[in-house]
Amino acid sequence: MSLIITGSNTVLEAMKVNRKIHELYVLKGTNREVLAEAYKRKITVKELDKQGIINVLPPANQGIGALVEDYKYLSIEDALKKTNKPKLFLMLDQLEDPHNLGAILRSADAFSVDGIIIPKNRSVHLNSTVAKVSTGAIEHVDVIEVTNLTNTIKELKQNGFWIVGTDADTDQTIHDIQVDTDLCVVVGSEGKGISRLVKENCDYVVKIPMSGHVNSLNASVSTALVVYEIYRKRG
Amino acid sequence: MSLIITGSNTVLEAMKVNRKIHELYVLKGTNREVLAEAYKRKITVKELDKQGIINVLPPANQGIGALVEDYKYLSIEDALKKTNKPKLFLMLDQLEDPHNLGAILRSADAFSVDGIIIPKNRSVHLNSTVAKVSTGAIEHVDVIEVTNLTNTIKELKQNGFWIVGTDADTDQTIHDIQVDTDLCVVVGSEGKGISRLVKENCDYVVKIPMSGHVNSLNASVSTALVVYEIYRKRG
Repeated sequence: MSLIITGSNTVLEAMKVNRKIHELYVLKGTNREVLAEAYKRKITVKELDKQGIINVLPPANQGIGALVEDYKYLSIEDALKKTNKPKLFLMLDQLEDPHNLGAILRSADAFSVDGIIIPKNRSVHLNSTVAKVSTGAIEHVDVIEVTNLTNTIKELKQNGFWIVGTDADTDQTIHDIQVDTDLCVVVGSEGKGISRLVKENCDYVVKIPMSGHVNSLNASVSTALVVYEIYRKRG
Repeated sequence: MSLIITGSNTVLEAMKVNRKIHELYVLKGTNREVLAEAYKRKITVKELDKQGIINVLPPANQGIGALVEDYKYLSIEDALKKTNKPKLFLMLDQLEDPHNLGAILRSADAFSVDGIIIPKNRSVHLNSTVAKVSTGAIEHVDVIEVTNLTNTIKELKQNGFWIVGTDADTDQTIHDIQVDTDLCVVVGSEGKGISRLVKENCDYVVKIPMSGHVNSLNASVSTALVVYEIYRKRG
């Protein structure tokens, strides 16, 4: 399977990790850095005029795009084989917005997350929008697709992981997270938070301390705050 | 001037702060909580069918919207009159994406930001999308519009503020911020960061420590990480 990706960073990172690129599309006279890299790698390039770009690429493309091999998911078994310690997985419980997943991929790359776990159903998946918003981070973060989140939590526990839920309705905060063990942080969906069954299976649940009136943050923002806190403490 | 806002949280928060609501539009049989509040406040309600909602409201409306009095900006002079200490302003240097501004408003409300400063030109402004994404936080955060960011920085300095820029190319980190004085944190645009002149006028520049390959975060994520660090330290 193939898909179209757009944006200079996204295309450049795809080249750097040697993702199979079937064809590159570029608006004539733009994106010289990406073009140079493409010629070096002997990638088929189609230079197009404005109308050509409109015909081939989705909007907000920065005049550059590519038809590439589809993104692959990792299995939880392969993710558990990684040898670095202590590990940090992020589990996204029914996240819906591709912009949030794209932003989370950037934070995951920046703050040493070893893998992002998403359910096969009722979740946003890796697609063109996610790739674009991730500005290439999609090439550097393993995404693990599982059929059932609570089963995966049990498997992670058997492998020594501590499961940390995030929710407003708790007394413990992100500063109470014990960071020296393998961790899986669970983040809920944009509107509804973590589902009941998943929450019940967490070892403990933490909140982000906050004041104010609305008392909720954007999902990619709250995810970044939790992950950064663990990254900072692990040093 | 009026504008249309959508989404149940956005409309509810507008009512709570007594924003002038000319008319409320609701998809028949939905949003009972908002409706009850509207009747209590004697707001004109139009219950519409699906096609009616499509005709009146922009997409992603959750079946609820309202024609409301436009959002007002605060002047820097009025913002400086606030008496709480130490203050925290956030200056957004040519931010473009309404989704980022909406998410930043949520973080600003949550983490005690006293005002968000944006330039009159070359910046996203308060609009329907920003209001929707802010889930009502737009009603609780002062936004200050100024004609010239460097002049405003000088005015803030004269009033005892320290100006802290954010950029990747620096040795100091967000953990080096001295939080006990009045602060204005400057955040750059999505693609280009802080403009040269603005950066030169900062007292010092900090980065967010990170590893990884892409080395950049979503603008609303990096803003939240800086602001949270100050909020956490001020305790």
